[in-house]
Amino acid sequence: MDKPILYNYFRSSTSIRVRVALNIKGIDYEYFALHLRKNEHRSKKYLKVNSFGLVPTLKFSSGIQLNQSLSILEYLDEIYPTPSMLPSNSVEKAKVRSLAYSIALEIHPLNNLQVLNYLRDNFSAKEQEIKIWFTNWVSKVFTPLEHLLMNDDNSGKFCFGNTVTLADICLFSQIVNNSRFDIDMTKYPKINSIYQECLLDENFVKALPKNQPDAE
Amino acid sequence: MDKPILYNYFRSSTSIRVRVALNIKGIDYEYFALHLRKNEHRSKKYLKVNSFGLVPTLKFSSGIQLNQSLSILEYLDEIYPTPSMLPSNSVEKAKVRSLAYSIALEIHPLNNLQVLNYLRDNFSAKEQEIKIWFTNWVSKVFTPLEHLLMNDDNSGKFCFGNTVTLADICLFSQIVNNSRFDIDMTKYPKINSIYQECLLDENFVKALPKNQPDAE
Repeated sequence: MDKPILYNYFRSSTSIRVRVALNIKGIDYEYFALHLRKNEHRSKKYLKVNSFGLVPTLKFSSGIQLNQSLSILEYLDEIYPTPSMLPSNSVEKAKVRSLAYSIALEIHPLNNLQVLNYLRDNFSAKEQEIKIWFTNWVSKVFTPLEHLLMNDDNSGKFCFGNTVTLADICLFSQIVNNSRFDIDMTKYPKINSIYQECLLDENFVKALPKNQPDAE
Repeated sequence: MDKPILYNYFRSSTSIRVRVALNIKGIDYEYFALHLRKNEHRSKKYLKVNSFGLVPTLKFSSGIQLNQSLSILEYLDEIYPTPSMLPSNSVEKAKVRSLAYSIALEIHPLNNLQVLNYLRDNFSAKEQEIKIWFTNWVSKVFTPLEHLLMNDDNSGKFCFGNTVTLADICLFSQIVNNSRFDIDMTKYPKINSIYQECLLDENFVKALPKNQPDAE
């Protein structure tokens, strides 16, 4: 198989998700960097790859182009089933997806660069207000999530048992993203222990922003 | 099978998604209304059902409780495979999920009630500014989506071919939600034609806010 091309950005947390998944599946890929702050994702050339002008996109040599990180993760898990990133049992699978979506739908969409810039540009938001906004959406999910993971028999070293699932990938990427705003993680000991566990796994470490070719 | 209980709110677009899916699968359910403006979803009793305090939750008589609408849709599609809401081919499935996620992750999380209230409370946003915010996120997705659906050989009566998929369910629910802000749909003729097609299907019509017991 020719290497797929991953169009992405070192600091983008949706890009981190796909990098972790590709590492877990042992898929070698070509790293194509798009500098979001320089608006390279809005170039005519990239809009032909991803008409929404968003990263990441994963392009296979067959011509298949996939966007939306969660859709890419599901695809990779279906095509390369081992090691699986979802339980095989339907209810357990739904629980893992729910955890993943709680982060991917309730935190990340509100805290990405274009939203923070909108607040700066249109509501004259000061940096302290941006931090409060960012922290608010993290806290609204992390507080009940911490309680849930602490009390749920299903959680283990990771969000669901002792193997990595979509939920851990979303959680890890969000915590990396949080570092921009100095979020106090001591309030979330269970979540933090899962993050620390991920940091022992080279599939996660290799996906960190600082380890990418376009890192600043 | 005993009827599952759907904890939801007539106007919530994530609730609409689950109602449509339950109708498509022919699953009879008990409607449990939570009034979001009265904060009934934050009551101690409901937090035991859904620790994130969000609607919808689908509770089966077996005790299984599922949250996050997209996770519920995937679960229903797996457990009740006919009629399917996803293509069987992996690439096609990924494309449908990408369309669904473009709406569910890039529009809805930014435009729900708690976010609009945050802008009112913390940035003193006026109603005109709220409308511009709301319209901005709709337009950022609908503009490229319209172009994509118009030019993609895969689209038919619906987002992907001539049968209903997750993408249509998300699209329909978003357009219903848009009606709060009088979004000009003439700019999106293909998207609007899909919406009109959904309105011919009683599974969608029965899920509309106005047809729920708690409708105001």
